[in-house]
Amino acid sequence: MSQQKIVIIGGVATGPKAAARARRLDADAEITIIERGKLLSYGGCGMPYYIEGKVKEISELMATPAGVTRDIVFFDKVKNVKVLNETLALSINREAKTVEVVRVDSDEKQTIPYDKLVLATGGLPLIPPIEGIKTGHVFRLNHPDDAVAAREAITSGGVKRATIIGGGLIGMEVTEALAANGIAVSIVEMFPRLLPTILDFEMSHFLAKHVQAKGVQLYMEEKVIRLEENQGKVCKVVTNKREIDTDMVLLAVGVRPNTNLAKVAGLAIGSTGGIIVNEYLQTSDPDIYAGGDCVENLNLVSGQKVFVPMGSTANKHGRVIGDNVAGRSSTFPGITGTAVCKVFDYNVGRTGLGEEQARQLGYDVVTALVPSSDCAHYYPDNKLLLVKIIADRKTGKLLGGQVVGAGDGVKRIDVLATVLRFGGQVSDVGTLDLGYAPPYASAIDILAHATNTIENKINGLAKAVTPMEVKAKLERNEDFILLDVRGPNEYAAIRIENSHVKLIPLGQLRFRLAELPRDKEIIAFCKISLRGYEAYRILVGAGFENVSFMDGGIVAWPYETVSGNVK
Amino acid sequence: MSQQKIVIIGGVATGPKAAARARRLDADAEITIIERGKLLSYGGCGMPYYIEGKVKEISELMATPAGVTRDIVFFDKVKNVKVLNETLALSINREAKTVEVVRVDSDEKQTIPYDKLVLATGGLPLIPPIEGIKTGHVFRLNHPDDAVAAREAITSGGVKRATIIGGGLIGMEVTEALAANGIAVSIVEMFPRLLPTILDFEMSHFLAKHVQAKGVQLYMEEKVIRLEENQGKVCKVVTNKREIDTDMVLLAVGVRPNTNLAKVAGLAIGSTGGIIVNEYLQTSDPDIYAGGDCVENLNLVSGQKVFVPMGSTANKHGRVIGDNVAGRSSTFPGITGTAVCKVFDYNVGRTGLGEEQARQLGYDVVTALVPSSDCAHYYPDNKLLLVKIIADRKTGKLLGGQVVGAGDGVKRIDVLATVLRFGGQVSDVGTLDLGYAPPYASAIDILAHATNTIENKINGLAKAVTPMEVKAKLERNEDFILLDVRGPNEYAAIRIENSHVKLIPLGQLRFRLAELPRDKEIIAFCKISLRGYEAYRILVGAGFENVSFMDGGIVAWPYETVSGNVK
Repeated sequence: MSQQKIVIIGGVATGPKAAARARRLDADAEITIIERGKLLSYGGCGMPYYIEGKVKEISELMATPAGVTRDIVFFDKVKNVKVLNETLALSINREAKTVEVVRVDSDEKQTIPYDKLVLATGGLPLIPPIEGIKTGHVFRLNHPDDAVAAREAITSGGVKRATIIGGGLIGMEVTEALAANGIAVSIVEMFPRLLPTILDFEMSHFLAKHVQAKGVQLYMEEKVIRLEENQGKVCKVVTNKREIDTDMVLLAVGVRPNTNLAKVAGLAIGSTGGIIVNEYLQTSDPDIYAGGDCVENLNLVSGQKVFVPMGSTANKHGRVIGDNVAGRSSTFPGITGTAVCKVFDYNVGRTGLGEEQARQLGYDVVTALVPSSDCAHYYPDNKLLLVKIIADRKTGKLLGGQVVGAGDGVKRIDVLATVLRFGGQVSDVGTLDLGYAPPYASAIDILAHATNTIENKINGLAKAVTPMEVKAKLERNEDFILLDVRGPNEYAAIRIENSHVKLIPLGQLRFRLAELPRDKEIIAFCKISLRGYEAYRILVGAGFENVSFMDGGIVAWPYETVSGNVK
Repeated sequence: MSQQKIVIIGGVATGPKAAARARRLDADAEITIIERGKLLSYGGCGMPYYIEGKVKEISELMATPAGVTRDIVFFDKVKNVKVLNETLALSINREAKTVEVVRVDSDEKQTIPYDKLVLATGGLPLIPPIEGIKTGHVFRLNHPDDAVAAREAITSGGVKRATIIGGGLIGMEVTEALAANGIAVSIVEMFPRLLPTILDFEMSHFLAKHVQAKGVQLYMEEKVIRLEENQGKVCKVVTNKREIDTDMVLLAVGVRPNTNLAKVAGLAIGSTGGIIVNEYLQTSDPDIYAGGDCVENLNLVSGQKVFVPMGSTANKHGRVIGDNVAGRSSTFPGITGTAVCKVFDYNVGRTGLGEEQARQLGYDVVTALVPSSDCAHYYPDNKLLLVKIIADRKTGKLLGGQVVGAGDGVKRIDVLATVLRFGGQVSDVGTLDLGYAPPYASAIDILAHATNTIENKINGLAKAVTPMEVKAKLERNEDFILLDVRGPNEYAAIRIENSHVKLIPLGQLRFRLAELPRDKEIIAFCKISLRGYEAYRILVGAGFENVSFMDGGIVAWPYETVSGNVK
């Protein structure tokens, strides 16, 4: 295998990682990276933090942990990897096993032979069909140059209002970055909620309340039609519903896999738009590997191929490809659909399937919605976290989980992602030996609480309705009692104000059963659903037949509440 | 099953949890809790934080998340559970199925019949054979009353120096609590290191440096012989090596299972000293269940029975027992040996087996020692975390993990505990789809980094020596080169000063190979072992045969270093 030629197209994440790994395994191979841009091996996910000013120099995104910049000289001297940057790969000749490239600045062409070829061509930003999108102060976030341009616009002053088109992961990260610079931010999102592919309705609503509390304007289910300019700079975003004055626009509508080279070379492309690879990350041509944002991945939970670009996946791909091109046999098992994101003071995350997605796949879905403190409730630093768990009623299998809140949610997502990887049950989660000490968790962790709730539902010990179902009942003015079992002070502070609501504090419930009609449906709730569940069990124990509790309590109620004195 | 009598002995964690669960499942059962103390259902793990003053009122440890105190009235009204507190269980008559109890304050005896009996008798503090241990200002931490007494001593003034006997979990938590009150703390520990049952040598040493930097005096491998008093209060701790002036002593030497009742009743007791229970948490008498700190647990990694008291386990036990006494069939699978602890600014944790323990069980142990930032190294809030992973070379099975550092280590312990639960391999860890965004993790998470290192070692791609092995070589003055591949500025800032050390920065290594002898052993290292590994691969690639790298780099070097100008 020695002295073989390994050519890698793409120098951001998968490419350099594959090169470095291959070099460590094969000291003699001739390894070449072809990169269209000037910069190499940058942490693209750090761009929002550069725009914010948290990361001071864009070069930090290209530095090793020891502070050395990963440039051409670094790759040459340290890694013995040749880099052709500002060089575009034009075409692949699979029969001759060559790549034709051209220098961007000189039009100088070159034909590079390979034994093994790696496609790490990344993603291309989706360009929505918006009139005026090439106006000044309209920024994308696909390359460090974009981030530098956006940061320059901010620091040069004059940007007081910004509009972000797209409420996905990048959109949310940039929202925080801009707001931290004192800019009034509006978000326009085509879908009816923030992070539409990450969070279910009620979780997204919980996030939206936080984002709005930070002064951000949300325009959901709106489509941007055109951008208007003034003296070459964007000044107005026109949607199908309104006009938004703005000094800056950030396009965060996502990326698509960059498969141009692969397509022309006749490699198989999947229905997701990504290059098809097997578990060795081999394309339909066994001498060509592909990884990172240009390929599709197997979602281990759904069993389906998906396009989910993620920097962490790209790096894992790089290592597997480095192994395989250097003659070792390595596989990439797939993903579980994990995504996390910091949004102001909230930690947001999901893994596995969403509720709707699980239904579409034919699962008999059962969920739990649990707001609780992320550590011992007497520990002063405890913070609220809203957790949603999604499972299959028939098999008890865990299907997915979501978190939103100031509490430590990412830890819980990591645990759920690990359980999903092993195909675990909800009953496994409740008895995991997770780290417990008051600063880190409750003696009964929120994950155990949530999965115990699901087990109770599966076993017929708990019957719950979602806040959305309750809302629908209220709107249809159904004849039922929405039983608030909190204390009078809690009720005065915040409540669902509706004639269906009746207040009986939990401590009095056993003694005031006569006040409740046995022929009407009763739905109990409290602040977080713990006392609501208790009330439900008391009523069941007392022979009430048409009774349930509302998931998540008033904390997770995604609709209007009333505060202050009771009328 | 209805109207059956469930009697529970112990009202702290397992007991109340079992009672509440049983009540929700069986509305008619007669449920009685017998508790020797006055207080019920308290979060004993919160006591260090009450002593610190972070938790303001001791009653907060007995409150529900909604702020209601879990007292007799609460259990009666809300849970319909009868509580006999300040009542001691004297004996169990298994044939008659009765428990004889006595009121602590009146000597009034009573015989209580049961259908199902639950032993949740907890642990008893170990009382070391120290002369003068009953002196004033010598505190234990077994009951909220102990915490109240200790807090009173602190707030009344006059406590300037405190000595903690025992450097285990409670000892470490109390250390922080006392230091936060401006008290000069000394720790005396019989074993040669802090947290001896939790952390391996090099991990414990990393923690010790932090604790010492906070001004704490550590006296390891010392045994307390006696306490001396002045006017009824402790004034001196006399060990086998020194005398320590002190104003207060905290005994934190651990607990043993309280099995007195069980023993007399003839129930089977394990070699760990805990009550033997099966997976249903049933004792050798099928009508008697036991859980919490009085039973032994199955360690799922070692397959051995262990005594590991833990509040989280006690609560899980309670739920399983509640199910089983109410006629549902539930099992507790066992533990993986997880423990976490906050020590000043450091997060500390472990799960699974330690290195020594794994060796004793006959595993062919392979480890990785990786210091790295806990999130993207360019993200301003990143913090250092030292991770150790322990695996079986033969099967690639994960055996355990440990973390120490300011970085988010508990999250990583939770992931490893989950992998251990499913019997996973180290290779599984590296490809887990963990949450990635710059505030939470690196694109290649520290766990992947550590498990990839182990895989490289197993596959013969990486040969490493531990810092302990290097130290031994230096002390034997073996003829080898300890190759520091960091930059000259890093070397000037902190280094291992020894004639065996040679400095060649990684970027120059490929061009200065001639300076290195091919007949001598070479051990490369850097700050965190990343460049050290790279250097090792370069030397292997260049045909050097007797070469390796030092695990963990200088960051994890548990011995003396030198700072400042090079001589």
